Amino acid sequence: MGTAEMISEEVAGQVTKTEGRHSIFEDEARKMPLPVCPVFLGKDGEIRPARFRETNIALTLKNPEQLQRVFPKTLSKNRNVVLEGIADESLRSITGKRVAVLFSGGPAAGGHNVLAGLKAALGKGNSLLGIRKGPKGLLNGDVFEISSQALQNILNTGGFDFLGTDRTKIKTQDQFEKLKETVLKNRLDGLVIVGGDDSNTNAAFIAEVFEKEGIRCSVIGIPKTIDGDMAVGNLLPISFGFDTATKIYSELVGNLTQDAASAVKYWHFVKLMGRTASKITLEVALQTKPAIALISEEIAEKNMSLEDIVDYIVWVITERRLKGINHGVILIPEGLVEFIPEMRTLIQELNKILAEYGRDIQDLPTLKNKQEFIYPLLSPQSAQLMASLPEEMEEMLILDRDDHGNVKVSQIETEKLLVEKIRYRVSELKRHPDKFFGKGESRIDATPEQVEKVRSMSLSTQSHFLGYEGRSAKPTLFDAAFAFLLGLTAGSLVLDGKTGYMAAVTDFDKGGRVMALPLVGLVTSEMRKGKQEHVIEKSLVTINSPSFVVFAENRERWAKEDLFSSPGPIQHWGPTSRQLPISVALDQSYKDFRNFDLGEERQVKLE
Amino acid sequence: MGTAEMISEEVAGQVTKTEGRHSIFEDEARKMPLPVCPVFLGKDGEIRPARFRETNIALTLKNPEQLQRVFPKTLSKNRNVVLEGIADESLRSITGKRVAVLFSGGPAAGGHNVLAGLKAALGKGNSLLGIRKGPKGLLNGDVFEISSQALQNILNTGGFDFLGTDRTKIKTQDQFEKLKETVLKNRLDGLVIVGGDDSNTNAAFIAEVFEKEGIRCSVIGIPKTIDGDMAVGNLLPISFGFDTATKIYSELVGNLTQDAASAVKYWHFVKLMGRTASKITLEVALQTKPAIALISEEIAEKNMSLEDIVDYIVWVITERRLKGINHGVILIPEGLVEFIPEMRTLIQELNKILAEYGRDIQDLPTLKNKQEFIYPLLSPQSAQLMASLPEEMEEMLILDRDDHGNVKVSQIETEKLLVEKIRYRVSELKRHPDKFFGKGESRIDATPEQVEKVRSMSLSTQSHFLGYEGRSAKPTLFDAAFAFLLGLTAGSLVLDGKTGYMAAVTDFDKGGRVMALPLVGLVTSEMRKGKQEHVIEKSLVTINSPSFVVFAENRERWAKEDLFSSPGPIQHWGPTSRQLPISVALDQSYKDFRNFDLGEERQVKLE
Repeated sequence: MGTAEMISEEVAGQVTKTEGRHSIFEDEARKMPLPVCPVFLGKDGEIRPARFRETNIALTLKNPEQLQRVFPKTLSKNRNVVLEGIADESLRSITGKRVAVLFSGGPAAGGHNVLAGLKAALGKGNSLLGIRKGPKGLLNGDVFEISSQALQNILNTGGFDFLGTDRTKIKTQDQFEKLKETVLKNRLDGLVIVGGDDSNTNAAFIAEVFEKEGIRCSVIGIPKTIDGDMAVGNLLPISFGFDTATKIYSELVGNLTQDAASAVKYWHFVKLMGRTASKITLEVALQTKPAIALISEEIAEKNMSLEDIVDYIVWVITERRLKGINHGVILIPEGLVEFIPEMRTLIQELNKILAEYGRDIQDLPTLKNKQEFIYPLLSPQSAQLMASLPEEMEEMLILDRDDHGNVKVSQIETEKLLVEKIRYRVSELKRHPDKFFGKGESRIDATPEQVEKVRSMSLSTQSHFLGYEGRSAKPTLFDAAFAFLLGLTAGSLVLDGKTGYMAAVTDFDKGGRVMALPLVGLVTSEMRKGKQEHVIEKSLVTINSPSFVVFAENRERWAKEDLFSSPGPIQHWGPTSRQLPISVALDQSYKDFRNFDLGEERQVKLE
Repeated sequence: MGTAEMISEEVAGQVTKTEGRHSIFEDEARKMPLPVCPVFLGKDGEIRPARFRETNIALTLKNPEQLQRVFPKTLSKNRNVVLEGIADESLRSITGKRVAVLFSGGPAAGGHNVLAGLKAALGKGNSLLGIRKGPKGLLNGDVFEISSQALQNILNTGGFDFLGTDRTKIKTQDQFEKLKETVLKNRLDGLVIVGGDDSNTNAAFIAEVFEKEGIRCSVIGIPKTIDGDMAVGNLLPISFGFDTATKIYSELVGNLTQDAASAVKYWHFVKLMGRTASKITLEVALQTKPAIALISEEIAEKNMSLEDIVDYIVWVITERRLKGINHGVILIPEGLVEFIPEMRTLIQELNKILAEYGRDIQDLPTLKNKQEFIYPLLSPQSAQLMASLPEEMEEMLILDRDDHGNVKVSQIETEKLLVEKIRYRVSELKRHPDKFFGKGESRIDATPEQVEKVRSMSLSTQSHFLGYEGRSAKPTLFDAAFAFLLGLTAGSLVLDGKTGYMAAVTDFDKGGRVMALPLVGLVTSEMRKGKQEHVIEKSLVTINSPSFVVFAENRERWAKEDLFSSPGPIQHWGPTSRQLPISVALDQSYKDFRNFDLGEERQVKLE
């Protein structure tokens, strides 16, 4: 080709040198110091494990009789009392302990720092073992010893790829037997489960089984989820991963608000990840001030129908149009459909029909046959709703099932459903203005000129889904610190012989307070498919929380004027790098969201 | 609600204080200094306009006779010679000039700094006017005077929203009359057009018309496009906006590579914006080292069919599977379909059929009727290809047209087409391994165990489109500086009485060299719908460019092993904030991509 001599060997070398997670950025990030709470600092200034003492806080059991029956051993041991970390160097002399850790569920930024924190707490006298590919690896005994060198190399990096993860639920007797085999074979003194509500529920059950059977292995959970639905009042303001994910989504949504205002023609419909809670959407709204942000919990609380939501969106679009603003951004939480009462009813009816007649329906050759079979079994309201949905969506509801045979709710393209309904409504509004404008109830009062202005509007829409790109990112300085501290907490709890707790850190505004929450105190009972199940309660948006109230107080202005702001990309250096989530700062009554304080910075050296 | 007292008034106040583009980040960004090339610095160290002198470089005219006929005045005046900026303070005393600027086409990061650079060159003695909503505003006379205060407020911010933009093409006599009216009515001495290839072509035509008609108004173009297809050898390494867009996409793709490796099950198919050139995809590949990156220009060059591409992807998926890697990321340039020879033929045939029988086809009631009409008119190859496409795509090809009645190529969901074809191929491979494995040509040689390993593979795919979120972002330090310097260059050219040039800056590695490229020298002739049209030539990826060669030398390793790296979010402070695009560093034979050098930093104070 004769171009070889033109190639800059230096830059070509930089390309290969940055392979394998060694980008310029990743190599610099590895070197960054982390803040450490005072209870984890010895008199010599070095990092060391803390001890724990009881606080005067006991969690309220949600269903005391039931829980007493299911978790008798743990309850009698921990008495549901919250523990607090204290400065005490006595655990420093413990050696020979073997502690294993696994990731469970979707990735969240900071996972690798949890491992580093665990190792830092255990010190060189004890072993940290990694379990590959999540709970499945725990059952299969896929365990290896993690070297300090390997940990040093993943410090402050994103992703869960050092261990991998999966979503296996540990429920059956057979699974518990396999799990015990892994624990006994590897002589584990501790098992740390990094996961969401389901995984921490698992941790509670495993702790109980171990207590019952006299297996001396501490079981500790670590709250991980980008959704923000693992939070316990002011004891645990949030899980790790939320800050990074919401800051990435806020960066992108901020860019889209600017793009909408620049191209002056697009309405961007943005669905945001978050299986149930709308906490991500609320945080991104507080960061970016978009034209519209739908909050599922409010919609359920106010019993809003799909048509009510469409009404609201079209009202905002029209109001803005009258002011000459022909663009905007609409945030939609991923879990929305399940909070719209009529949609929830439809999905429940469909699940019931599929459970009863699944095979018959499967055997019918065409979609049309299946529809003819299903429609008469639906309530009239649900049948009407189903018929009003776009055909693709109807097809998906009938044909796509999850492993349990249920409708795959997470696959429903809510953003496209809304786009379709709104486009239709706007075209109606343009074709039959007499139906919508004029004086009287539920009509828009507008001058003839205003009506014409709305009729001349062209609605250009783009839909987006932001999700995966926020889960495995390099953690923010906050998530890097928080996850490291959670690892330190969990390692300390194991050395201190505690079991059945979830590690927690709070008081992000004043140096950090280290906590341990009794897992059983977080568990509630839920009916799932006709069976009573015990699960850790999800923390949802409540409409009287400060974060929601502040959003609700401002949203009408954000709807009517272009007041968006763009929080920019996550910074790891410089004046904007230490911001907390705004919703967390509000709900914790902090005085400032611009700077977190989790202790003194230390260069982490694992050995 | 009784919660008012719980609300932190401080944080609630911060929420409203950050409204309207005043996030913590945006306010800090406004304060950042910008580097300034020596030719723009006076003896007093202040920013001032440069003058220009001829270099010994003349551009080669692509079609001299044609161009001589179309641009006689400009060619005789500028003689197609490249100019270079020199330090000369004589323009500092000019006052009373009126210069207008507009944005054209899609947004790109840095636009607001172009305006700041223009104002800084003009100084307080001259006026900078803004034209709202792009070329349309130029025709409608939508012009206003930009205050220094307003400019100071948008310094270093993203988006084009200060002026807005649109895509009106100025072609007709009537349009030229309106344009002249705006120029004369506003007594403009200069018109600066910030845009891509089409907009700069417009600038060339407008300059010619003004010369011909004795209108003394300089016309200067500024190269803007995220696509990276405006580049002229070592005179203009890239347009502004490319660096920011590719760094955002690289951040997100880096996160997806980590997510794929963490969840250990997903293949992420990522389509990247970039209408024609694959430069964005190439840069993102050099940054992130994904399993696969398709480069349209290579596919056209090698005459690869859709099936060839599917073969390649399935080969990589299988090879990785055999190594236990069941995940990866595939980058797909947005313009791909038009570079696949058979797809291009199909689209051309369809456009011809639609042009001839559009109305007849439109009148046919069902899609099936339309298909029955169209198929016999296609060549056998195209009919076969059409029949092999997913139904949705076929529907789109037949039903969706752009304003000119052509197939809407940009709407083709290439990533989903590939996902569908690959899923089908993999299922074939699993059901009929005998067809694919074994000895012999185009078969995969594998042991029976390996065959079983491939057969047990489950292929989970996710598709993504990254585009809008990269256009309006806050510019990187590089784009902020580059755009400001381009504005300084354009403002200086106007004061120096030059017309028909595109502002350019080069030598990003050694302080920056300021250039002016004669627009006509960039123009080529193209057949568009049977008519000879003059357009600025797009700069595409060439397979003997250093950037492509380095990519091609490494990609097999990146395909077979997980060597991804994650360049992280754009940093505006700290050790990683001054990186150049890798592809630019390679193609310009720089020695390092980690630090650009565009001169001494100055705090920009506009007055």
